[in-house]
Amino acid sequence: MAIPSIAQVRKALIARPGKPFDLSARDTADRSLFPDKAEAETSLRKDAAVINELKDMLYAEGKRGLIVVLQGMDTSGKSGTIKAVFSETTPLGMEVKAFKVPSSEELARDYLWRVHNAVPRRGHVGIFDRSHYEDVLVVRVRGFAPLEAVEQRYAQINAFEKHLCENGYTVVKFMLNIGHAEQGVRLKERLMEPHKLWKFNPGDLDDREHWPDFMNAYQIAVERCSTRHAPWYVIPADSRSRRNAMIARIVRGALEDMDLAWKDPGLDPGSYTI
Amino acid sequence: MAIPSIAQVRKALIARPGKPFDLSARDTADRSLFPDKAEAETSLRKDAAVINELKDMLYAEGKRGLIVVLQGMDTSGKSGTIKAVFSETTPLGMEVKAFKVPSSEELARDYLWRVHNAVPRRGHVGIFDRSHYEDVLVVRVRGFAPLEAVEQRYAQINAFEKHLCENGYTVVKFMLNIGHAEQGVRLKERLMEPHKLWKFNPGDLDDREHWPDFMNAYQIAVERCSTRHAPWYVIPADSRSRRNAMIARIVRGALEDMDLAWKDPGLDPGSYTI
Repeated sequence: MAIPSIAQVRKALIARPGKPFDLSARDTADRSLFPDKAEAETSLRKDAAVINELKDMLYAEGKRGLIVVLQGMDTSGKSGTIKAVFSETTPLGMEVKAFKVPSSEELARDYLWRVHNAVPRRGHVGIFDRSHYEDVLVVRVRGFAPLEAVEQRYAQINAFEKHLCENGYTVVKFMLNIGHAEQGVRLKERLMEPHKLWKFNPGDLDDREHWPDFMNAYQIAVERCSTRHAPWYVIPADSRSRRNAMIARIVRGALEDMDLAWKDPGLDPGSYTI
Repeated sequence: MAIPSIAQVRKALIARPGKPFDLSARDTADRSLFPDKAEAETSLRKDAAVINELKDMLYAEGKRGLIVVLQGMDTSGKSGTIKAVFSETTPLGMEVKAFKVPSSEELARDYLWRVHNAVPRRGHVGIFDRSHYEDVLVVRVRGFAPLEAVEQRYAQINAFEKHLCENGYTVVKFMLNIGHAEQGVRLKERLMEPHKLWKFNPGDLDDREHWPDFMNAYQIAVERCSTRHAPWYVIPADSRSRRNAMIARIVRGALEDMDLAWKDPGLDPGSYTI
């Protein structure tokens, strides 16, 4: 087997903009892109190195930015993805923002306020560990806002992301699509292993009980908010190694599409005496 | 040769709090701690792996923070240090803040305002690429503030750093001490290599012409602001590999001194049914 091309990975995983989307048809255990685990690991390693190099060019250029949105149920591997895909990447010029329960300062503004505030500097890569999509996911499931307000948000989010794209940002969004059974396995792991126990939050079990509601909310969000300027990719996430490899391919593709090159500051090197 | 212990590295490089300090006596090319380059690289690799593990524990604990201050003349290797020392570290929980020329918003406040604002969340590691020390270095050399105001700042900075330490932050400060000749070599490299040219700033040559004034400002800042709660380490920086190895030893030491352990959330794993 060869490593699948970036185009193949995108085509297999994208939620096609403007088309009907069926989350239930996406197999969380699908390994068809990377049947072989070792090959997934090789692909990840190669892509992580290229991502590092392209990120340095983006930093040097300082004119555009990349925003990577990671969404998924608990244990779907948001942190693990960050570690793996950016394993070769220096923290200089990286901005990881973990969106937690909104603070009172944040709740005192509209829900996109804190997100806009977290947009990375030009030249940087911003990773959103959760994002404004919480405001149409958990908020919808739990009824934290009236349904009519939630219903307005999809178009608001599309407008916001379009604004970012028109102003020099590339936005790429990943749903880490883990299966209910695999989440059960991982929650049990957290309870069993001392270095994972700190991540266990009894509240996660409440979300687990609302699984069908969350899947419905994801279905709606992905279908309505996968756009040409900011597509959603739905990543089979039951296998960590394949999940990492697939996301790395797509992140690399997003950076390659920027046509980055080492910035030419327009200096005449010969004119300086040191 | 064995890898020098953390205690040995600290002792050799610290500016002893409350004691006279003589910057001119510090050899920028000193290799005595790591005579052998390969050994420096080995030491760095080992320390980078431990730093990654300890940082994850700090993140899990979420109660304390580490602030690493990097100061040095242009080309002294602030970016390179970040890349090397945190090469194994996931960007999750890392906050790199590059302090640039203050914005009008920043200039409208006292000089520590933007620094306080950049303090990392508890559980995170904050790296300051330049820092509030610019306000007693370039500001002193260029006369951007009256000398009387600058003279007040050393005690203000000590009080600010003491405040951080008393509130759960470990602060460790590095002067990357590069020689005038080595800087010349590196500035020429920037002019010659396409992937380095973007870093070349003709303004750096102005600073280079004020070299003795900058060294005097560093001498004063390090002597007055190396405290028991926030010591300065003066790192011979003419050799990149040794610089990285020495800093990694000290950063590892700072994390080890926190006595970190995997957080025990106080849960009874047996009480949950998944």
